[in-house]
Order: sequence, then structure tokens, then C-alpha cells
Amino acid sequence: MPETAESEVLGHTTPPTAALYDVIARRRDVRAEFTGEEVGEDRLLRVLDAAHRAPSVGMSQPWDFVVVRDPAVRRTFRDHVATERETFAASLPEERRGTFATIKVEGICESSMGVVVTHDQARGGAHVLGRHAIADTGLFSTVLAIQNLWLAATAEGLGVGWVSFYREEFLRDLLAIPEGVRPIAWLCLGTVSHLETVPDLERHGWRARRPLAEAIHHESWST
Amino acid sequence: MPETAESEVLGHTTPPTAALYDVIARRRDVRAEFTGEEVGEDRLLRVLDAAHRAPSVGMSQPWDFVVVRDPAVRRTFRDHVATERETFAASLPEERRGTFATIKVEGICESSMGVVVTHDQARGGAHVLGRHAIADTGLFSTVLAIQNLWLAATAEGLGVGWVSFYREEFLRDLLAIPEGVRPIAWLCLGTVSHLETVPDLERHGWRARRPLAEAIHHESWST
Repeated sequence: MPETAESEVLGHTTPPTAALYDVIARRRDVRAEFTGEEVGEDRLLRVLDAAHRAPSVGMSQPWDFVVVRDPAVRRTFRDHVATERETFAASLPEERRGTFATIKVEGICESSMGVVVTHDQARGGAHVLGRHAIADTGLFSTVLAIQNLWLAATAEGLGVGWVSFYREEFLRDLLAIPEGVRPIAWLCLGTVSHLETVPDLERHGWRARRPLAEAIHHESWST
Repeated sequence: MPETAESEVLGHTTPPTAALYDVIARRRDVRAEFTGEEVGEDRLLRVLDAAHRAPSVGMSQPWDFVVVRDPAVRRTFRDHVATERETFAASLPEERRGTFATIKVEGICESSMGVVVTHDQARGGAHVLGRHAIADTGLFSTVLAIQNLWLAATAEGLGVGWVSFYREEFLRDLLAIPEGVRPIAWLCLGTVSHLETVPDLERHGWRARRPLAEAIHHESWST
């Protein structure tokens, strides 16, 4: 990152821009590296406050955060996820099934806690500014909050792992989430031994990253 | 932020964690503050690279970025948005209509460029790891990339404004986006005079922010 001029001026100071890029680059989707130690309430609140500062359509702030530490609840969820893992494995061609077998998909019980992020499309009333033409912008707002949470946790030296091998109805029942509120993610959050430098799915030969240049178009899709 | 110990050790250094929290707090959804100057390719690439480093389900990286600078295309889109603004205004009760009339909803032509973020659910093939139970996790991945982009732009001293007063079919036709690829956002991106410290919708009396404590639950939704 060409922050040279500022770095020269500030000496040992980390320029804020470089600090952000460093967090974005170090962030990983964590499964195997959780150590399960306690996370202090101050640290957890800073991470949730970062999530809560996300932009949202019509300032509807449609998210909620359910913090789950109870080991019994987490074991129940982990067992459900194990079943869904088998469902996915059974759908794979044989050579992919072998690669998938080496990949850990969750750290539900090993992490310090679960943070379940939910979405309430009714938040903000009947006239949410900016949502009349695209209903999903409500949902998008909740997802923006998740990325803030993820980066804040990374900066705090914590790890986050998004678990998506579950049925929404199962998670809704498990946490008594009311009808009309949708569970969006189970995030494993907690202390970690380290963060890997290469994403798990790349290390295990599941998939390679796409070059940035392929994702950029100019003026229209075809150029 | 209780970064006191680190701050004392590092003297004038901005601790990386505080730098991230500062960017998250300063980020605004910009409409009126765009100045329309050129943004260098290096700076744009750093912002798009940050977006491209977002997590994605099964490492599918389902996003693309269409950079739109052409003034004629932007005027066409702005006119469409103006029509949708009227549609929304007409749906409002009278007292809300008065408040809404004072709120600017886009800076399409005043910004330095548009960045249209799209989502391709076919990216990653038939067996996207982590998506079999929740199809929307593909869409969620694209939205995570948008928040990385937003924070990177803020750190770079740029502004971002998400425009959502449009019909997806209109934007698809305007930029020749193929069937099967969904436009997710028109982001106005560019140089700004400043960032407001209070969100527009709060300053204009549209809606107040929700206290964080109301969004946090413990062990289940009802607690």
C-alpha cells in the first residue's frame, strides 16, 4: 500500500489506512484455531458496538445479536450441523467428497461463544426509506453489520467462523426466535491460537481464489 | 475504547484496533458531500481489493464490480431514481412526506463514479460448500464485500453512498448485466468535502438510532 509518505512522516506510527487493510487481509473464517478462553464483556461489547454501527436501509438497524455460551445448547446445535454436513457430503461427486472429508466446517463448542445474528424485516415500520423497490435491502443491512463484527473481532485478536450448515427452522426453535425474525448466521466467536494466512478451503485444495482483475468491469458488464 | 495500556506503550502510535473503530465510527452514507474530483486508479484498486478480500461461502467470491464514470449513463440512472423517489413519496402519510422532502437520496452525478456491485449465484459451481441448506448465503457473501469496500473508501478519505431507489431490471438493462447475475447495489464513490458526524436520516428527523443494549440477547431471544 503506497502509504510511504505518511509512514515517513509518522515514523513508527501505523497509518490508519494501512491498519484497516491489515485487518481486512488477516481476517479468516476460523474453525480449528479456537482455544475457548473467556472473552471479557468489554471486548465483546466493543465488537458488538462495531456491528451496531453498520449502515442500514432507512436507518432501520434490523439486526439483533443472541450471545450463546451454554454448552448444552451449543452441543445440540453442533449435532444438528453434523447431520447437515453429512447431507452435503452425500450430494458430492466422489473425488470432491474425499477433499471435503478433510475440511472442518465449525468450531461451535471449541469457540468462546456463539453470536447468532438475526434479521427483523418489520423493524422501522411500514415506510422504510430506501426499501420500497428492493425488499432485500433490509436483509443486506444485517449482513453489513456482520462484516463490521468480523473485522472488529479480528482487530481485537479474536477469531470468527460463520457456520451455515444448518436449517433456519432448527436454529429458530433452539433459541426461541419469534416468527418474522430470521436467523442469518451462527458466528463462532472467541480466542484463537493464531489466524491462518491462507483460507482453509484454499489450503485444503477445495477452491482457489479468483484474481481481482476478473471481477472489475468498466462502464458495462461486458467490458 | 480501553486501549490505554497499548497507547501508553506506543506513545503517539495509533493502535490498529483504535484505527479500525475510528473508521467504523466515521463511515457515513454520503449524498450531499461529494465533490466529483478524479480518484486515482491506485486508490480505486485498493478499495476494490479490500472488497475482494471479503469472506464468501465456499470461497465462491460471487461478486463483480462495474465502475461507471460515463456522465450520460449516470444521468439516465439518476432520472430513474428520481421517478422511484416520487413513487416512495406518494406512499407516505402527509407528515412523513414533509420530512422526506428535505432528504437527498443520491449523489449519482456529483460523485466521482458509480460502482455497481453484482451477485452471481452460479459462481462456484453446483456444490458450493456451506450453501446447500441456506441459498441466501451466496447473496450474503456479496454484501460482506460491500462493507469492506465502504470501510476502505472511508479510510482512504473517500465517501460512499448506497442508492437503492431503483428497479433491478432497469439497472440490469442499463449496464447489460446478464440474466442470472443480480445487481445488488449502486454505490456512489468519490471525493468528499467532509463526512457528517451524524447520519443524514437522524439529522433530518427521519429516525433515531436504537440503543445497542436493546439489540443484545443472552442465551435465547427472550433474554
